[in-house]
Amino acid sequence: MRIIGEKLNGTLKKTGAAIQARDVKFIQELAQAQVQAGAYWLDVNAGTHPDREKDDFCWLIKTVQEVVDTPLCLDSASPEVLAAGLEIVKGQALLNSTTAETEKAKAVIPLAAKYNCQLIGLTLVDSGMPATADERFEIAKQIVDQAKAAGIPAENIYIDPLVRAISAEPEQGRELLNATWLISHKLAPVNVVYGLSNISFGLPGRALLNRTLLAMAMASGLGAAIMDPTDKHIMAVLRASEALLGQDEFCMNYMTAFRDGSLG
Amino acid sequence: MRIIGEKLNGTLKKTGAAIQARDVKFIQELAQAQVQAGAYWLDVNAGTHPDREKDDFCWLIKTVQEVVDTPLCLDSASPEVLAAGLEIVKGQALLNSTTAETEKAKAVIPLAAKYNCQLIGLTLVDSGMPATADERFEIAKQIVDQAKAAGIPAENIYIDPLVRAISAEPEQGRELLNATWLISHKLAPVNVVYGLSNISFGLPGRALLNRTLLAMAMASGLGAAIMDPTDKHIMAVLRASEALLGQDEFCMNYMTAFRDGSLG
Repeated sequence: MRIIGEKLNGTLKKTGAAIQARDVKFIQELAQAQVQAGAYWLDVNAGTHPDREKDDFCWLIKTVQEVVDTPLCLDSASPEVLAAGLEIVKGQALLNSTTAETEKAKAVIPLAAKYNCQLIGLTLVDSGMPATADERFEIAKQIVDQAKAAGIPAENIYIDPLVRAISAEPEQGRELLNATWLISHKLAPVNVVYGLSNISFGLPGRALLNRTLLAMAMASGLGAAIMDPTDKHIMAVLRASEALLGQDEFCMNYMTAFRDGSLG
Repeated sequence: MRIIGEKLNGTLKKTGAAIQARDVKFIQELAQAQVQAGAYWLDVNAGTHPDREKDDFCWLIKTVQEVVDTPLCLDSASPEVLAAGLEIVKGQALLNSTTAETEKAKAVIPLAAKYNCQLIGLTLVDSGMPATADERFEIAKQIVDQAKAAGIPAENIYIDPLVRAISAEPEQGRELLNATWLISHKLAPVNVVYGLSNISFGLPGRALLNRTLLAMAMASGLGAAIMDPTDKHIMAVLRASEALLGQDEFCMNYMTAFRDGSLG
């Protein structure tokens, strides 16, 4: 299970303020804490301000790369900002993200191919966001076909089937899990990735719902998650899930985490 | 999700002592606490002492039935003890259990048919205990065929695919979940039931592993679990899982449990 550390995101209040203030110490400590806690990638997102996103993004990347070698997940809605980041990022980045929408795919997929990136594809089309597992699967296939045609190998593709709130649509948990299974099994070695927290929007006890979904999603084939690795409660479920699914040889990671107290 | 309250079991130290001492208050309070916490059935098991199991079992059933109307899960390895319990139990009991072993099935399946019980079938054959999901599924089919031939409807059959420890066999979590899916989907309306705790034998942090397995198992089709409904931590995962899987209309049970503090 690969963790994308989610905290270097300018839409989060503290991180956004630190980016604006060019607070090197705050950003670097947040990077190091997430790596220490088990992040495989660090998501970097400079927020959404059009006038300064590109500058902020490049500063963020440089600042993080001064202290960690962990690969970065370059996260922006703007292909232009992503392109600027790709010029300076070290190692193989994960590009976050394309969709199956015509204009977006045309801009982002060639970037991922040119820089030999891994690529996140959201199952979003020009006509909107899918509701069912089958619709998500069909859009995933379109993205995979386009990415492969551009020369991106299947194992470098991560599909995000888009998590929707069960408070509004109670069937969305089941549809999400079915989509996770379909994409990870029928399109293997394509991977499935998502952030968990949208599932619990509008409900109390969100952290409980989010980490319970993590266990179910891992059993269904989730290969990566955008999450906070410094949250001991969700990491406990992640390590337990790896042990239960035979993804942790001799349960060594689980037992190490148990012994050092990082299971909360 | 149907909970079989596990605590009225004479192999547990306190319950065993209470049965020997004919401690009516202890037994009745344990029954009421489990019903209050959400048990759909109460498992009753008088321990394994051959000289007194039958007497203890009948006393236990009578004592519990004085204070609750909840259906009972009659739990004994002895068909003779089960038969004695069936003479006095009120309502439709769940018989725990038969196997596919020739002698056992010949003794227990006719009992379940005669008394119009629901029946738990363990996927155990004369040649031993299966390791893979497919083997479990094949044995489940044998039990279902025999039970149906005796007149027991499929919806009254609960298959226990037998939980084995991941510490000894790391693939057993995956095999169990696959078996859960196969039996609950391919043999529907046959149900899947198990106790969770064997999965974590030999590992630290067992409660975390058990409740994480519960979430995965429910997503795979588990319909009932032998567990302790007075354990707030596992009940939190159960209520969250029901909400996530669309088994809790408008998330009402989840929100009620959250509000009354029973999610821990």
